[in-house]
Amino acid sequence: MKNRTFVTELSLHLGQEVTLAGWLHNLRDMKNFGFAILRDRTGLAQVVLEAAHLEQLKGLQLETVIKVTGLVKEKKSKDPNAKEVEVQCVSLEILSPVVDAPPVEISKPDLDLNLDTLIDNRVITLRHPKQRAIFKVQAALVKGYRAYMERQGFTEIFFPILAGAASEGGAEFFKVDYYGREATLTQSAQLYKQITMGVYEGVYGLSYSFRAEKFATSRHLTEFNQFEFELGFVESMDEIMDHAEAAIREMLGTVEKDCAVELKLLEVTLPPLGDAFPRIALKKALEVYRDEGGVDETSEPDLSPAGERWLSTVWAPKHYGSGFVMVTDYPTSKRPFYAMRDPKDPTNTITFDLVGFGSEIISGGMRVNKYDEQVQALKDKGLDPAQFEDYLMMHKYGIPPEGGFGMGLQRLTQNILGLANVKEATIFPRDVQRLRP
Amino acid sequence: MKNRTFVTELSLHLGQEVTLAGWLHNLRDMKNFGFAILRDRTGLAQVVLEAAHLEQLKGLQLETVIKVTGLVKEKKSKDPNAKEVEVQCVSLEILSPVVDAPPVEISKPDLDLNLDTLIDNRVITLRHPKQRAIFKVQAALVKGYRAYMERQGFTEIFFPILAGAASEGGAEFFKVDYYGREATLTQSAQLYKQITMGVYEGVYGLSYSFRAEKFATSRHLTEFNQFEFELGFVESMDEIMDHAEAAIREMLGTVEKDCAVELKLLEVTLPPLGDAFPRIALKKALEVYRDEGGVDETSEPDLSPAGERWLSTVWAPKHYGSGFVMVTDYPTSKRPFYAMRDPKDPTNTITFDLVGFGSEIISGGMRVNKYDEQVQALKDKGLDPAQFEDYLMMHKYGIPPEGGFGMGLQRLTQNILGLANVKEATIFPRDVQRLRP
Repeated sequence: MKNRTFVTELSLHLGQEVTLAGWLHNLRDMKNFGFAILRDRTGLAQVVLEAAHLEQLKGLQLETVIKVTGLVKEKKSKDPNAKEVEVQCVSLEILSPVVDAPPVEISKPDLDLNLDTLIDNRVITLRHPKQRAIFKVQAALVKGYRAYMERQGFTEIFFPILAGAASEGGAEFFKVDYYGREATLTQSAQLYKQITMGVYEGVYGLSYSFRAEKFATSRHLTEFNQFEFELGFVESMDEIMDHAEAAIREMLGTVEKDCAVELKLLEVTLPPLGDAFPRIALKKALEVYRDEGGVDETSEPDLSPAGERWLSTVWAPKHYGSGFVMVTDYPTSKRPFYAMRDPKDPTNTITFDLVGFGSEIISGGMRVNKYDEQVQALKDKGLDPAQFEDYLMMHKYGIPPEGGFGMGLQRLTQNILGLANVKEATIFPRDVQRLRP
Repeated sequence: MKNRTFVTELSLHLGQEVTLAGWLHNLRDMKNFGFAILRDRTGLAQVVLEAAHLEQLKGLQLETVIKVTGLVKEKKSKDPNAKEVEVQCVSLEILSPVVDAPPVEISKPDLDLNLDTLIDNRVITLRHPKQRAIFKVQAALVKGYRAYMERQGFTEIFFPILAGAASEGGAEFFKVDYYGREATLTQSAQLYKQITMGVYEGVYGLSYSFRAEKFATSRHLTEFNQFEFELGFVESMDEIMDHAEAAIREMLGTVEKDCAVELKLLEVTLPPLGDAFPRIALKKALEVYRDEGGVDETSEPDLSPAGERWLSTVWAPKHYGSGFVMVTDYPTSKRPFYAMRDPKDPTNTITFDLVGFGSEIISGGMRVNKYDEQVQALKDKGLDPAQFEDYLMMHKYGIPPEGGFGMGLQRLTQNILGLANVKEATIFPRDVQRLRP
């Protein structure tokens, strides 16, 4: 639309005539005049309507799409320093009439709906400023991630989704009727990103993962996106962790820069980054949790969710001024078949998790890059190497020492924004029950 | 890897000792010495080996991963102006040994394989410099697309893949066993991107589309990516075509800037852009094809592939200095249910195709944005509005006049690079027969 002014630009046009376009977010009819709130993609503005305009809106509901031409003037306010503006409507045009009342009230400061109602009505609830803000932050995270990876000279890969066999074994995969044959939906892009180590050496991408989880929890989706990263010719896992840390810093920096309005609206403060994220072996982390946190999980093979929370929200901020911790050296039993084992101790892997916002947000590490080792590692996990013929082709014909990481987009968004359920951080979420909208 | 030098940087280090890492791309054993070609992600370099290094490589095959430390010196050449460099190996380290000969010869200037062999061995054939170049160009196209869309302030959307019902009707969809129920894979992101018109007004993204095509042709995949774009508050389709044209210009500009080496290797010259892409109604285009091209298709409802080729490679370059043409005003019978009909002639739609590289590369237009019209349009196409309840919710509760377009990533890559089959432009292609690698 030509000559359209956005709500956030209004104060630049004080005393001028402008054209706004958007939704009738709210309306107060005072008989001889009225106040409309117009919503566009940038914000909300008050429009003062005359009786004739109210007449035009008769029989129409909120969410009607309108175009307003009017004069920008200072808004009378109890606070003389408020300096707010409003628009005195000169002419009103109905672009799309709404005749049925919307099923939910978008104009409230908070939607205050239960999760199912929120998502059943996604088409409408997404219009609420706080819902809209969530996916602006998500887009900024992706933008920051890509900007970092591009600057390193890495290559973006567009990963496939349909596959012939379950990519990581196990039972939690979806079956597709593929011309009478059985196909599966990829559980992860892991094998594909490793394959490209023979070609591009450094790759990234945003993949789709599908998991036929049995239960719907606040942390599980059947379909989600992952930030992927993989790098070849790596001499030490520190290189991978350096990239993970730098990527997180750029992602959060992008959110701070591009989404100040959204963070304020959602009342979110980002955690401190500190000078460097501390790096601590899992065994040591469990000891620290026992000695400083007063909870003894040293006999467990992993940190509990409570332990992860304590480590990233209490211990790391206190000692390192950082809300993030790299936990390294996970036991072989807890890591997948492609995790590189510690040559000095085959029960230990050269892997890491980045714990932040109280929980694990990145999982990564060095990979097995030798053919014989990988065949053995598959067998050790009870998997059949014959099912991994294409994958093993890369080991057989040479890939460099390499590593990488994965990071769930929706779960990261959930953690950053402190949302109770990961489905709130998913624009069109899918779970055991849900396939719509 | 610290202190690693890439092949393309070698000439900057003449006379110095460097460390290279990569694959043994080729080897000539001259008994007392030898020549290795080392391949890394940037190119190929000749390495002069001594007898001891040849001994280290004994029993190993091409594609073995190596690390070479050596002296950069001028390469003796018949052409005294050649100014090429090579590396005199001082020490050689085997990073990943390859003991079986690879199934295809990567070291040849052209792979010269049939398509099935090429893709069956994708894990290895992707390493060939010409194959690698294809997906560098593809990544640059996506980068240019996003850079354009970001600069406009549009919001990136991450579209869902699993859906409850076939998104555009028809029979060509895949069924997924979803906890005993039936789910489908999205045929397109069309309905989702339209839904966001009530929220972000301008959106883009790279979607996945799945089509259960019955036949494998040189232009069809069962799984592909689409550049998506949708914009609200549009007064004329020209606004949509302006964005399509500007996006294409930025995408091709990014390829020219970032992929000069790849374009040269693939012997590709990009078509002329001209000052502006001509815009011509379909009926007029058919007349021009008859009058200037000598082929009469004026009784047909659409241009034939030959007509599209003539229009973009003969007519537009001759009259407008451009290899691209916007063809507008397609008949209602040839466009989907969401295409806006011409208010003056309901048998005509306000839609366009961008024809370039000899074929259609973009399809777009204005959409129906009124509820009653959309319900009727669904019925006219023999579809049941009850199946489109979520989609129609957006019309019912107000979306602005809007339009957008879609553009196939793999097909565009195929067209730009002049590849015979779209599967060559797909990193891990899927078709009726193929689900691997």
